[in-house]
Amino acid sequence: RKQITMPEECVSYLDSDSVSWVDVQGLGNEDILQRLGNVFKLHPLLLEDVVNVPQRPKVEDHESQLVVIARMVVPKEHKIGFYSEQVGFVLGKNYLLTVQEEPEHDCFEPVRQRIRQNKGTLRKQQADYLLYTLLDSIIDGFFPVLEDYGEEIEDLEAEVVSNPTRKTLEKIYRVRRDLLTLRRAIWPQRDAINSLIRDGSTQISESVRIYLRDCYDHAVQVLDMVETYRELAAGLMDVYLSAVSNRMNEIMKLLTVISSIFIPLTFIAGVYGMNFNTERSPWNMPELNWYWGYPLCLVTMGAIATLLVAFFWRRGWFENSSTVVDDPEG
Amino acid sequence: RKQITMPEECVSYLDSDSVSWVDVQGLGNEDILQRLGNVFKLHPLLLEDVVNVPQRPKVEDHESQLVVIARMVVPKEHKIGFYSEQVGFVLGKNYLLTVQEEPEHDCFEPVRQRIRQNKGTLRKQQADYLLYTLLDSIIDGFFPVLEDYGEEIEDLEAEVVSNPTRKTLEKIYRVRRDLLTLRRAIWPQRDAINSLIRDGSTQISESVRIYLRDCYDHAVQVLDMVETYRELAAGLMDVYLSAVSNRMNEIMKLLTVISSIFIPLTFIAGVYGMNFNTERSPWNMPELNWYWGYPLCLVTMGAIATLLVAFFWRRGWFENSSTVVDDPEG
Amino acid sequence: RKQITMPEECVSYLDSDSVSWVDVQGLGNEDILQRLGNVFKLHPLLLEDVVNVPQRPKVEDHESQLVVIARMVVPKEHKIGFYSEQVGFVLGKNYLLTVQEEPEHDCFEPVRQRIRQNKGTLRKQQADYLLYTLLDSIIDGFFPVLEDYGEEIEDLEAEVVSNPTRKTLEKIYRVRRDLLTLRRAIWPQRDAINSLIRDGSTQISESVRIYLRDCYDHAVQVLDMVETYRELAAGLMDVYLSAVSNRMNEIMKLLTVISSIFIPLTFIAGVYGMNFNTERSPWNMPELNWYWGYPLCLVTMGAIATLLVAFFWRRGWFENSSTVVDDPEG
Amino acid sequence: RKQITMPEECVSYLDSDSVSWVDVQGLGNEDILQRLGNVFKLHPLLLEDVVNVPQRPKVEDHESQLVVIARMVVPKEHKIGFYSEQVGFVLGKNYLLTVQEEPEHDCFEPVRQRIRQNKGTLRKQQADYLLYTLLDSIIDGFFPVLEDYGEEIEDLEAEVVSNPTRKTLEKIYRVRRDLLTLRRAIWPQRDAINSLIRDGSTQISESVRIYLRDCYDHAVQVLDMVETYRELAAGLMDVYLSAVSNRMNEIMKLLTVISSIFIPLTFIAGVYGMNFNTERSPWNMPELNWYWGYPLCLVTMGAIATLLVAFFWRRGWFENSSTVVDDPEG
Amino acid sequence: RKQITMPEECVSYLDSDSVSWVDVQGLGNEDILQRLGNVFKLHPLLLEDVVNVPQRPKVEDHESQLVVIARMVVPKEHKIGFYSEQVGFVLGKNYLLTVQEEPEHDCFEPVRQRIRQNKGTLRKQQADYLLYTLLDSIIDGFFPVLEDYGEEIEDLEAEVVSNPTRKTLEKIYRVRRDLLTLRRAIWPQRDAINSLIRDGSTQISESVRIYLRDCYDHAVQVLDMVETYRELAAGLMDVYLSAVSNRMNEIMKLLTVISSIFIPLTFIAGVYGMNFNTERSPWNMPELNWYWGYPLCLVTMGAIATLLVAFFWRRGWFENSSTVVDDPEG
Repeated sequence: RKQITMPEECVSYLDSDSVSWVDVQGLGNEDILQRLGNVFKLHPLLLEDVVNVPQRPKVEDHESQLVVIARMVVPKEHKIGFYSEQVGFVLGKNYLLTVQEEPEHDCFEPVRQRIRQNKGTLRKQQADYLLYTLLDSIIDGFFPVLEDYGEEIEDLEAEVVSNPTRKTLEKIYRVRRDLLTLRRAIWPQRDAINSLIRDGSTQISESVRIYLRDCYDHAVQVLDMVETYRELAAGLMDVYLSAVSNRMNEIMKLLTVISSIFIPLTFIAGVYGMNFNTERSPWNMPELNWYWGYPLCLVTMGAIATLLVAFFWRRGWFENSSTVVDDPEG
Repeated sequence: RKQITMPEECVSYLDSDSVSWVDVQGLGNEDILQRLGNVFKLHPLLLEDVVNVPQRPKVEDHESQLVVIARMVVPKEHKIGFYSEQVGFVLGKNYLLTVQEEPEHDCFEPVRQRIRQNKGTLRKQQADYLLYTLLDSIIDGFFPVLEDYGEEIEDLEAEVVSNPTRKTLEKIYRVRRDLLTLRRAIWPQRDAINSLIRDGSTQISESVRIYLRDCYDHAVQVLDMVETYRELAAGLMDVYLSAVSNRMNEIMKLLTVISSIFIPLTFIAGVYGMNFNTERSPWNMPELNWYWGYPLCLVTMGAIATLLVAFFWRRGWFENSSTVVDDPEG
Repeated sequence: RKQITMPEECVSYLDSDSVSWVDVQGLGNEDILQRLGNVFKLHPLLLEDVVNVPQRPKVEDHESQLVVIARMVVPKEHKIGFYSEQVGFVLGKNYLLTVQEEPEHDCFEPVRQRIRQNKGTLRKQQADYLLYTLLDSIIDGFFPVLEDYGEEIEDLEAEVVSNPTRKTLEKIYRVRRDLLTLRRAIWPQRDAINSLIRDGSTQISESVRIYLRDCYDHAVQVLDMVETYRELAAGLMDVYLSAVSNRMNEIMKLLTVISSIFIPLTFIAGVYGMNFNTERSPWNMPELNWYWGYPLCLVTMGAIATLLVAFFWRRGWFENSSTVVDDPEG
Repeated sequence: RKQITMPEECVSYLDSDSVSWVDVQGLGNEDILQRLGNVFKLHPLLLEDVVNVPQRPKVEDHESQLVVIARMVVPKEHKIGFYSEQVGFVLGKNYLLTVQEEPEHDCFEPVRQRIRQNKGTLRKQQADYLLYTLLDSIIDGFFPVLEDYGEEIEDLEAEVVSNPTRKTLEKIYRVRRDLLTLRRAIWPQRDAINSLIRDGSTQISESVRIYLRDCYDHAVQVLDMVETYRELAAGLMDVYLSAVSNRMNEIMKLLTVISSIFIPLTFIAGVYGMNFNTERSPWNMPELNWYWGYPLCLVTMGAIATLLVAFFWRRGWFENSSTVVDDPEG
Repeated sequence: RKQITMPEECVSYLDSDSVSWVDVQGLGNEDILQRLGNVFKLHPLLLEDVVNVPQRPKVEDHESQLVVIARMVVPKEHKIGFYSEQVGFVLGKNYLLTVQEEPEHDCFEPVRQRIRQNKGTLRKQQADYLLYTLLDSIIDGFFPVLEDYGEEIEDLEAEVVSNPTRKTLEKIYRVRRDLLTLRRAIWPQRDAINSLIRDGSTQISESVRIYLRDCYDHAVQVLDMVETYRELAAGLMDVYLSAVSNRMNEIMKLLTVISSIFIPLTFIAGVYGMNFNTERSPWNMPELNWYWGYPLCLVTMGAIATLLVAFFWRRGWFENSSTVVDDPEG
């Protein structure tokens, strides 16, 4: 393993008997990539596939070379989200060329460790096994990302019920958008791996095919999880909408209770605030001159208020549905 | 049937003519599982499938061994819900190794009973028939769980109509989430059983294949039920949202009725509460000095209130739609 | 045609040259069914399929016997709804055994009539033609049920627009649930009939296959109708939600119109109800002592009210959208 | 071309060398249809298909006869909508029998014109070409109907944004229902034409098959349009719901603005309308006796109102979102 | 490359050895097109396909000619949107005829440039390579259009959260409608290219087929993007609806807070505005004559207001959720 800067340095490795892994990190320099294409004798269309982004994950079998385009995700640290990056593989007789979209973040470090430490069977195997190992680490790289979203969805489940705010809504939308991106990445990847297994490409040996089947199973599992999370997130949106409606109901209830109790009382107070001339006629507000006038008036108001409160009580409007939140089973 | 603790004790059984069922409960000790893999001569990938959780249910045919990964559900007692657990099967010539994810809860007890009691044809059959029996009891184990959810949905149907609260909403969401989990468990299981039937695995005899077809029918039926319940639960969410809207309508109606009746009346009372100087001009609130002023004012108020009540009555706002709840046909 | 009570009585018929139809009504007595299984030499799995409910409709071809599980619906009288019942068919060389789940309600009466009256070609045909006739009457039995739901949906279309209540909502939900049940019944039935046509079962003659194709067309038509009604019912739910929102809008408009007009007026009345001492200062409410004070105040109030009414008028809030209901084209 | 009333009159044409087109309009008289079946020697099942309505569009190949069931739509004049009618075709060696469900409205007039005027290649062709011409005119008959709905949807797009009423909702629902009906008509028709092309029916010559492929393309295009319109109509429903919510927001805003401004002011007026005895104590409403009491009170009220208006202004509540309607780009 | 006006001028080119590209821009003159059909010896059905709009994208292989119908989109300048135009291709032995629907806007300019400048391999290739180049530029023409919509959706994501108005709603609807149109254009195009690759048309050489596979990959990618954007737009509609509901909640909260605080206070003020005669009885409003009456009344009012504010505070109603907008992470 060494750092090389000129594509032409690779030439010697291509003809050697041992397996070489050439890992190009970053698509910045077009000239370098062009020369690399020449060194590896890549068909112009294949080179285009490898160096252009974004491409749809796929497999292209071209004479003595097998080109695989894959998409790798690396979870962001300290927060939800992921970096998504295209990786192009060119598998030749005894070399594997990988072209990464960006120099930072990849999920190949464990594989490099195993190579360096001579651990496992990796060093004894051919280039196709290395391709499998890298594809497998790409697919397995989806799991930690998905687990982050699984936890986020669980957090959102709690939040949407206890305290749904506009921020909750945005989070749900962002989770849905990210899961859509993940699905778009894993779906064609699964098909690509499947075509690697089924189409009788001569570059892939029979024993590696068995390992790829395992890799395919993992891709299907990733897709399963993505779909499940997508449905959960869609369900959360429904719950959010209902929670917002519920909250509106609570607000309306409060307004209605207070208005309904005080508006009639205020009306009565208004009536006895009228200035009809009690001296002109015995029919003009005789209550004002009664001995028990004011107490009677207050008692009447109290009775009306009590009746209304009882009415709302019986309708169950005072059961504060917000307390449900504190119920651990709720 | 006996309890063994060392994997190596199994060796003698593997070569015997009689059928052995080795049931490993719990995935705790990795070393034990590794030694078990050695004893049963499992391919590393297969062993990984069996001991790693969660796996997607599937069938792997590998030379003389058939590996089946299944997912078992056991209903929780006393409340809605289920424990979900992975079971790995390794079917050899005359042994069946089962590896359960957790030591508690399984649905194999009836099968163990039948073996102990020598009942039925189970003891006279080969290991593949035992595999069928266990798979069948796993699939049949979904039915009680689903029946619980069927009852829960029926309860929720009543609740969502009579008294929809935030708790109802959470229950609906939880049912949808659990049904999603069940679907994710049964869907690949159905495919796995189907591939057991169709792919000409030599481990499965023709007569057991007929029984597996029955098992497949049950899996399809489980899936049917899950899908139906999912649609019902989605429909319930709609009904819940409508019920919440309806309730808001009721609240708004009440507020509007009370406000609309008393606000004009209070305005009239306010008018006659004004302090215009009646002595300055005959145009300044002469009503206050009329002989019938106050009674006329009250009568006017009463007339306005009556008209408004009549208006609301004709619009049908007093038909209490909440009473619909008590209607058994509703 | 005669009533028999002991399964063993059938034996003589099985060997006769003429076609026998044995119709078991009700699954009550397990012992009887067991003996029946013995008489007809049914494979234990097939017997289980026939006597256990609910089963998924399917076809099982087993040596000299063909087992068909179907689901029959019979419309309820006097109200919307249906009885759903499983029917198991066992077709042998010259007999047809039918096992109905319940003794009441079946849709075979017209077939029995035709047999009794010796009408049509039924009596001259083999047992497979009888199977077709019964299957056809089962499929055709879906049409009246579906027509009921078609009418119900039309009623609901009118109701949801003219007078949507909570009861409407429940009716829509019930229709959706029932259509889901019907779909679950007819979908596998269609597949079962299709497999009867395509799979070269020796029990079904070529000429009967042509008739079964007709039966299959009907099953597809039933499924089409169910799907169409399901979409209509889902659309109705949307319309219901909108209608409820619209109604809320109407209520809010009324509240807003009345509040907006009277609240400013009441404020003015409140102002002139204040008790500032007019004698202390010429700035303290001089209006109260004006000659035209009160009439001016009333005129001002009237002007404000007129302006507000005009404002609402221009916004179209007085167009009562409820009258749309009486429009026959609406 | 002549009008015949007795089915038996057709007989002579069937044996002639020239191509005959027998067009039966209306399914009223069963006896006539029965005799027609005899004249054309139709299999009972085929006759049933042709005369029973509604049938699902399909193709039945039966020995020397090919039966095609199609569904024709004719746009209503002066308003949106269509008449839907079943047409049964029986194609024999040198005749084509068409059975229309109803005597009025068909879309075959242009074909009749071309035959009468001896225009085009129609008269020189065989009966299968006539079948193609009629099927093509049936499929092409969907386009004007769909264009009507396309225009209706465009009208509704404008209406739903500028002035959504209950009537808009009903129109959207009706469009969705009609599109569902059209889809149910065109979907199986497309399959029927496809099976005409692919299945090697001897009644259809190779050259006509090429024309039928064109007809199939049109059917696919019709289906495309139906699906697109269905999605647009579903989107319209969402927009309608949002527009209704928006309108409610406007109403609520108005109510809130007016209430929030006047309720505090009315409270202040209420305070100074209290009758505390100012002579008993210098603390009892001394403001009433201040020289600048009333002006100060009015200024305070004005200040509060201004503050509140400013608050609502900054929140953007006075931007009348209804004016968006007049924006041609909006 | 030269401008020709008479179709007959093409004749000489058709027989020449070099590859000719005849590009007809605009479908205006039917006579010209008819003569063109004669010159190129097009089957009447094919000519119809090429000159009639709109057609569904497709491939028709007819003896020595291959007809491809495609749909080209060109982004509008300065604003979101696109011109959609049909292009018909007729590929002969050594000529390619293209018929564009409209004379303005096409996306072939780069190809013309490359031909004029003799750049790349284009000039040395056969007519089928030219067909590929043009198809490729049509498919690649979708990307800038889609990128516009991608940006629009990102803008709408921000707008729907920060300031959702009726205009936002219309924009979302328009994006959805346009994406539907794009999907309808690209879907059959993808199938057409696929059938070009798979069906062994003799007009397409093996080497061009490889290039077409690349073109097919791009079409799939376009479709992927369209579907993703469609789901995002649908999600936006949900967010919009929720945002509108949230805003309503804010409005209701404000109304409720203000009403709930002032209505009880106004009631108290109303009570002490009543005119009960304090001289008739010591029970008639003795408070009015208390020394501390008015201050006590004000203190009571203040206490009530404080309690209510505290109540709303604890419920979190004063957390202005609108400020979330300014949070860059939100």
